[in-house]
Amino acid sequence: MKPELGVCYYPEHWPETQWAEDAARMRETGLSWVRIGEFAWSRIEAEPGKFTFDWLDRAIETLGAAGLKVVLGTPTATPPRWMLDKHPDMLAVDAQGNPRKFGSRRHYCFSHMGYREESARIARILGERYGKNPHVQAWQIDNEYACHETTLSYSRAAVEGFRDWLAQRYQSPEALNRAWGNVFWSMEYADFSEIDPPNLTVTEPNPSHVMAWRRYSSDALVAYNAAQVGALRPLTNAPLIHNYMGRVLEFDHFDVGDDLDIASWDSYPIGFLSDRLDDSPEHKRRYLRQGDPDMQALHHDLYRAVGKGRWWVMEQQPGPVNWAPYNPAPLPGMARLWAWEAIAHGAEAVCYFRWRQAPFAQEQMHAGMLRPDSAPAPALGEAAQVAAEIEALPEIRLAKAPVAILFDYPSGWAWETQPQGADFDYFELILETYRGLRKLGLSIDILPVDSDTSDHPLLLVPGLFELPDALKLRLAARKGITLIGPRSGTRGPEFNIPLPLPPALPGLDATIALTESLPPSAPEPLAQGGAIIRWLERLEGTADVVEETASGQPVLMRSGGLHYLAGWPDAQALARILFRACGELGIETRDMPEGLRLRDTEVYRFYINYAPEAVSFDGLEIPAAGIAWKETK
Amino acid sequence: MKPELGVCYYPEHWPETQWAEDAARMRETGLSWVRIGEFAWSRIEAEPGKFTFDWLDRAIETLGAAGLKVVLGTPTATPPRWMLDKHPDMLAVDAQGNPRKFGSRRHYCFSHMGYREESARIARILGERYGKNPHVQAWQIDNEYACHETTLSYSRAAVEGFRDWLAQRYQSPEALNRAWGNVFWSMEYADFSEIDPPNLTVTEPNPSHVMAWRRYSSDALVAYNAAQVGALRPLTNAPLIHNYMGRVLEFDHFDVGDDLDIASWDSYPIGFLSDRLDDSPEHKRRYLRQGDPDMQALHHDLYRAVGKGRWWVMEQQPGPVNWAPYNPAPLPGMARLWAWEAIAHGAEAVCYFRWRQAPFAQEQMHAGMLRPDSAPAPALGEAAQVAAEIEALPEIRLAKAPVAILFDYPSGWAWETQPQGADFDYFELILETYRGLRKLGLSIDILPVDSDTSDHPLLLVPGLFELPDALKLRLAARKGITLIGPRSGTRGPEFNIPLPLPPALPGLDATIALTESLPPSAPEPLAQGGAIIRWLERLEGTADVVEETASGQPVLMRSGGLHYLAGWPDAQALARILFRACGELGIETRDMPEGLRLRDTEVYRFYINYAPEAVSFDGLEIPAAGIAWKETK
Amino acid sequence: MKPELGVCYYPEHWPETQWAEDAARMRETGLSWVRIGEFAWSRIEAEPGKFTFDWLDRAIETLGAAGLKVVLGTPTATPPRWMLDKHPDMLAVDAQGNPRKFGSRRHYCFSHMGYREESARIARILGERYGKNPHVQAWQIDNEYACHETTLSYSRAAVEGFRDWLAQRYQSPEALNRAWGNVFWSMEYADFSEIDPPNLTVTEPNPSHVMAWRRYSSDALVAYNAAQVGALRPLTNAPLIHNYMGRVLEFDHFDVGDDLDIASWDSYPIGFLSDRLDDSPEHKRRYLRQGDPDMQALHHDLYRAVGKGRWWVMEQQPGPVNWAPYNPAPLPGMARLWAWEAIAHGAEAVCYFRWRQAPFAQEQMHAGMLRPDSAPAPALGEAAQVAAEIEALPEIRLAKAPVAILFDYPSGWAWETQPQGADFDYFELILETYRGLRKLGLSIDILPVDSDTSDHPLLLVPGLFELPDALKLRLAARKGITLIGPRSGTRGPEFNIPLPLPPALPGLDATIALTESLPPSAPEPLAQGGAIIRWLERLEGTADVVEETASGQPVLMRSGGLHYLAGWPDAQALARILFRACGELGIETRDMPEGLRLRDTEVYRFYINYAPEAVSFDGLEIPAAGIAWKETK
Ligand SMILES: [Zn+2]
Ligand SMILES: [Zn+2]
Ligand SMILES: [Zn+2]
Repeated sequence: MKPELGVCYYPEHWPETQWAEDAARMRETGLSWVRIGEFAWSRIEAEPGKFTFDWLDRAIETLGAAGLKVVLGTPTATPPRWMLDKHPDMLAVDAQGNPRKFGSRRHYCFSHMGYREESARIARILGERYGKNPHVQAWQIDNEYACHETTLSYSRAAVEGFRDWLAQRYQSPEALNRAWGNVFWSMEYADFSEIDPPNLTVTEPNPSHVMAWRRYSSDALVAYNAAQVGALRPLTNAPLIHNYMGRVLEFDHFDVGDDLDIASWDSYPIGFLSDRLDDSPEHKRRYLRQGDPDMQALHHDLYRAVGKGRWWVMEQQPGPVNWAPYNPAPLPGMARLWAWEAIAHGAEAVCYFRWRQAPFAQEQMHAGMLRPDSAPAPALGEAAQVAAEIEALPEIRLAKAPVAILFDYPSGWAWETQPQGADFDYFELILETYRGLRKLGLSIDILPVDSDTSDHPLLLVPGLFELPDALKLRLAARKGITLIGPRSGTRGPEFNIPLPLPPALPGLDATIALTESLPPSAPEPLAQGGAIIRWLERLEGTADVVEETASGQPVLMRSGGLHYLAGWPDAQALARILFRACGELGIETRDMPEGLRLRDTEVYRFYINYAPEAVSFDGLEIPAAGIAWKETK
Repeated sequence: MKPELGVCYYPEHWPETQWAEDAARMRETGLSWVRIGEFAWSRIEAEPGKFTFDWLDRAIETLGAAGLKVVLGTPTATPPRWMLDKHPDMLAVDAQGNPRKFGSRRHYCFSHMGYREESARIARILGERYGKNPHVQAWQIDNEYACHETTLSYSRAAVEGFRDWLAQRYQSPEALNRAWGNVFWSMEYADFSEIDPPNLTVTEPNPSHVMAWRRYSSDALVAYNAAQVGALRPLTNAPLIHNYMGRVLEFDHFDVGDDLDIASWDSYPIGFLSDRLDDSPEHKRRYLRQGDPDMQALHHDLYRAVGKGRWWVMEQQPGPVNWAPYNPAPLPGMARLWAWEAIAHGAEAVCYFRWRQAPFAQEQMHAGMLRPDSAPAPALGEAAQVAAEIEALPEIRLAKAPVAILFDYPSGWAWETQPQGADFDYFELILETYRGLRKLGLSIDILPVDSDTSDHPLLLVPGLFELPDALKLRLAARKGITLIGPRSGTRGPEFNIPLPLPPALPGLDATIALTESLPPSAPEPLAQGGAIIRWLERLEGTADVVEETASGQPVLMRSGGLHYLAGWPDAQALARILFRACGELGIETRDMPEGLRLRDTEVYRFYINYAPEAVSFDGLEIPAAGIAWKETK
Repeated sequence: MKPELGVCYYPEHWPETQWAEDAARMRETGLSWVRIGEFAWSRIEAEPGKFTFDWLDRAIETLGAAGLKVVLGTPTATPPRWMLDKHPDMLAVDAQGNPRKFGSRRHYCFSHMGYREESARIARILGERYGKNPHVQAWQIDNEYACHETTLSYSRAAVEGFRDWLAQRYQSPEALNRAWGNVFWSMEYADFSEIDPPNLTVTEPNPSHVMAWRRYSSDALVAYNAAQVGALRPLTNAPLIHNYMGRVLEFDHFDVGDDLDIASWDSYPIGFLSDRLDDSPEHKRRYLRQGDPDMQALHHDLYRAVGKGRWWVMEQQPGPVNWAPYNPAPLPGMARLWAWEAIAHGAEAVCYFRWRQAPFAQEQMHAGMLRPDSAPAPALGEAAQVAAEIEALPEIRLAKAPVAILFDYPSGWAWETQPQGADFDYFELILETYRGLRKLGLSIDILPVDSDTSDHPLLLVPGLFELPDALKLRLAARKGITLIGPRSGTRGPEFNIPLPLPPALPGLDATIALTESLPPSAPEPLAQGGAIIRWLERLEGTADVVEETASGQPVLMRSGGLHYLAGWPDAQALARILFRACGELGIETRDMPEGLRLRDTEVYRFYINYAPEAVSFDGLEIPAAGIAWKETK
């Protein structure tokens, strides 16, 4: 199957007379998919139970007739105003206890059963009408779960849901008290009805309490999604998709992904560089109009795992957006580069967001493929070029990467609950690890914790908060090199420090005797160069020492292939550690020029140049913001 | 009419035995005006309906007998405690939904009809008693509207007022939905009663919604003021004044000004430098004890427009204040300089705030003309010097400036609603434009949008969010040079992007194809030097290119005198653009020494030296913090 | 009496089978004291009125039998969950009006009479059971009052308590209005029931109002503590102690201290450096693993005063903590150094917090003397060394210091209420003064305002907001040198500026004519070097000028020994001023190497090296993080 391109389109925003021409231009551009409907509830059901489908029928027909395949969205991210009259308590409530108001989006609480049923109802009604429609070839459920920090809601419904969830998990208050260590500050409960979410406490709440709240909140979101899946499944054979966002760790995407057929994500490289990347001003300046060289690829690999191999980019940034602190335009070529990079990572489809820039409402400064006056915006031509290039190439098939990183959403919650050092962030640890591998020219697989890793000679397990015994045994039994840490396995499932002390890896005599978090001003230099930053564990034991501090404290210990890394390495130290491991395993590494990245597929090697200047490499001249490929087999 | 000096005085703060002596010293100092009463409600009406006027009668008589003219304030900025028992819901409510509490000032909501009537009532009662009093020669209504961010209130009264206002403006919910583009995220309303103020939404609300809320809130303030005007007008022939604050754009001052006779403002140059000027640390260090060299002048020119030619400084900083982050003392001479600068800009009166420093309550660290022990503070002697100098000079008459800038309060709301770039601020754009002109030695007029500009050879229209067709035609028909942009005309009245795309100026073939906001780290260099910062529009069209980026992108295009500037110029670029325009128009420019400013009146040219060092210019030696003048005719 | 060591222990956290072994190891280490019970309410009284004492009986017996003396805590800092059902309104309420929730600690309001009685009840019940127990040799009441900013609560109980307190203080609303100057903004009250706490006002409330609220809140805390004292006193002869925190000024510790027998404090040098010390990044980097060289000593001297001579360290940091932004480990030697420094300042006991690191709940990352697996942590060996060294030395007896500083909690509230300059902080002024003395090698006494200072040749009175006449007379009559200011005596008891203008010191003709606060960018250089920073008062008068600015403005004036310092000196200026005063008085000073400090006791001089490098001084070689002593008599 060849990769396809698509676009997000809102027929309800435009005169019906324009639909056919829009559809024709989409086809001319080489687009195959068009996503519609995900914010149109007020036009489908303007009053409770009063449905208006004729416009949507005609829109689907017009698009389909032009040869486009439709992704139809359930419109549940934007419940209409009348929903609040039916369910006044459905609003999400913030940590200060204020209900969030109507007039924007995502204003519902995942725990509210009434709204959950309304969502399943509208999904069912759409499924009944369009489930067998030949033009509707995929479904999107809701839109960008958790965007705008909407996973956690402190509503009455959430409080009650949390208590039920606790009762099922712990069975008795005594068990909960024991599990959480509530004896600590006389925090013991006599009844589940006494337990609130952990907000508005005087000083920090029990981290076990917070972790339970985070798990519950993720589960509520998963159940909310499952309700719509349950409504749609019997009514359609088309795949069910959700479009996740970038750097969102608030809920367990693997759990949601288990209920869906395809994972997709919304990729805004320039917006994300500006609003959610922690990096130096120089780095942000250099990549201002391209996005970070590793941020997109990491998400591609992650969402490939969430989608169990099937994944899309559902929204691809086409030009300046409206929501970042600063919104510059992409360099010419980036709208093409981003699409090709996704394809190189295995995307089945890349859909640009959006067709025509809306001249009204919240996103009026968000560029589209067309300007508000329907003239082409820069992305249109670049998309057409990608479409033509796809046409000219044979199918792109994935290859297994030589390296894998285990990724785990609850670890994100764990270290947010208890950072211990102000700058300890799980996503950053993953991103820096990933970047370290990419700078050596490697392709990477991101995997959930319970994956089979036997085909990956090198496996990295940074910051995985819990290492159950079965996992430890599997990791210790692996061939190749397994690099665990920092901080991995330092908590049990209830957020307690396990005994014997971590990491307690079978066959590796190394114990964390003491843990330090380090301010940016105090890196700990390593004997071989580079330094440990942010996090340093003091290891004791007899395992072989591979790296140590300048003062002789062991930092990386191993026994055969099983390694424990007792600190957060800076880029120099990380590069050396990874280079040594790859060398030992015979994995070929390259010293990549700044901003150039490689991605290997079965037949092709892709050269992706995020740099603002041209680069020569492997006999290729890759222009600024350019992409190139050649056959490796 | 010669300019006059005055002072703010609080007889209720001092023993009655001291009043006569105070009045005599005011006259000795050369003061003509004394403002009283604006915070004295609890002393005038200690219980509802129980009035005590004898003290105020005697205070006015004592001051008047000494030869002083009284400005009498309505005390509505500080409703007494019993008012809350009568109107418990009159309190302003903050954006988090908390009612603001008693114990400070400005705690009322402009939308509350009960309090609006109470305010008209107290104004009427004061008017009845003092409207014909020969000593009361002017009235001040309320005090510093909007100070402490009090324009927006989320009270029940405001919610209801907003809905009424919406119903009158749009007539039907359907019309409102269309105007705002509420289809966008299913934000459509079926009834005006469903609409709330745009606070506490999950992510941003519709900018059209916010803009309507801003317009409503300004209108409510205007109506509140008008209620007091309506009460006083029939009772007095003395002029009605309000004292506005510095850098307050929350309500439309031109609308309030239309109902009054004189505009005044409260000028705190050193406090404002510290708490509301965005500039470099070096700039703030240099002008620490003088205030910014352009901030006062800009406000003088702006409030001259608000007052339709008649304006005062109602409160002039005399020494250190109490409310800025840091409160240093003015350089010797500044209390004189500031007064003279106001006079050079046409002030009819300059009143120092306050007579004697209060040794109690909130402003006990705010200097006066006297110390708390009645000894002279530094400002007293400087005021006496100004009074003597006025005496020695003939009348100062205004001259029309060669340059005008259009100023528009709704544009401030528009770009605050949708900055798009984190540092896009309308006031700053105006101030930098104004500063650029002043550094060329120019005098400037600030004008509301509907002004006749035919006498101004050079007209600048930066950041004016809406350009109605009639205005476009007028601007295109002007003689001289008209410089529009950046961002001008990029929104319609309902905050939508207009079609054809902006600026769509008659006769100027230039269209904004794409817009970027730029972080401080990424200025876009211009071919002729300097750079575009913050905001850059990509122009297409056939108009003549006057300025372009180093990479050849047009930035300033013209057709005859009509120019469009497609970016925010840095100081170097702005200077060149303005210098070129002035040269073309034959307007004489000067290269002003750092900190020295000129101001031309009909006969005199004033040399105002904000620098902390003496400067020689035009054969004059102007000392640090000094002022000089010479006849130009 | 020789100093003793101890430890904090939580028998309820560990299996009973482990207690005896723990106790034996404590004794082996050389510990004498063990603090228990202060968070155990839910284990003592799991349901209202249902007591379980058997475990506590056995714990005390086990510890006592091993030879340990027990400090028994009243568990009132952590009321159990059922308390909220009995007293739903007992929760502290934050300044936004939100009640704080259960699930952490210190969630009660000091003003709530129901909870105050519950606290006295549990104290009485514990006193009845253990008041005569031979092993219980001291009591701790509650835990860390005010920690996590819990002094101020805006609950209904506090509002009512405040009104009663006001009625008692002022007797009539008229008197209160006069005292506060409520005429200022029509803030006058007709009844005490109209007065609220000063939160949520539009702009700042009256500082007299805030100051009254701060006094009331401190008094409520003092009364809360007194209720427990009242319950325990009749039941035990053991001393009553509270453990105060570092840099907490929210309540008047001297008032609490008056009701207790011993003051103690919880000393976390590395945590405090990170989270509550204002200093340069270089300073914080240098002392990252040692703590600030003066912060602990200042608190030791302060709490010696609070304890009227008797004081302990109740919690001594043993290793990394869990609550600061970054949590590095101490340098080897610091756990010994800190204990010895406390002893040099007269501590009767130093107790490490805690025995074994808890592997669960909020403080699981807080190091103990043992690791969670009971292996020794670094502090255990250092404590054993201290114990052995104490054994080897004779008793340490205090000597009176040559210098004293007056310290006053209400002055902290005053300048927080009205900083006037953003960085004017009372504690910092005290700490910098103290540091200036220490850098000259001096030992210091900190004293409450009403102390006899006749034995201290040099007395410093910085920032004391109120100087009652009796105090002025006492200070003026002193022998030696008395250095008052900056800002001392500039307010009356109701927070008004007194007349005649401050400082109005008998026999010293110097008056503050004007006051400035200076931003960090604008220090005012002094003629003899160094500068005034932050705060500068313009003095007038005929007293002798000792220091003046480079421009000739007097800054330090004197008449005989009575000095007034009219600004905040930087380190260089302060050093000169103190050096001159000591020289005049014949007090020997030293030029201390960076990080080395001296402390004189009756017989021994202690050399305390906070520096990360060894230092030679007085013929001694003191290692990094090391301590030394020699006999001086
Ligand atoms: Zn999106
Ligand atoms: Zn004012
Ligand atoms: Zn503690």
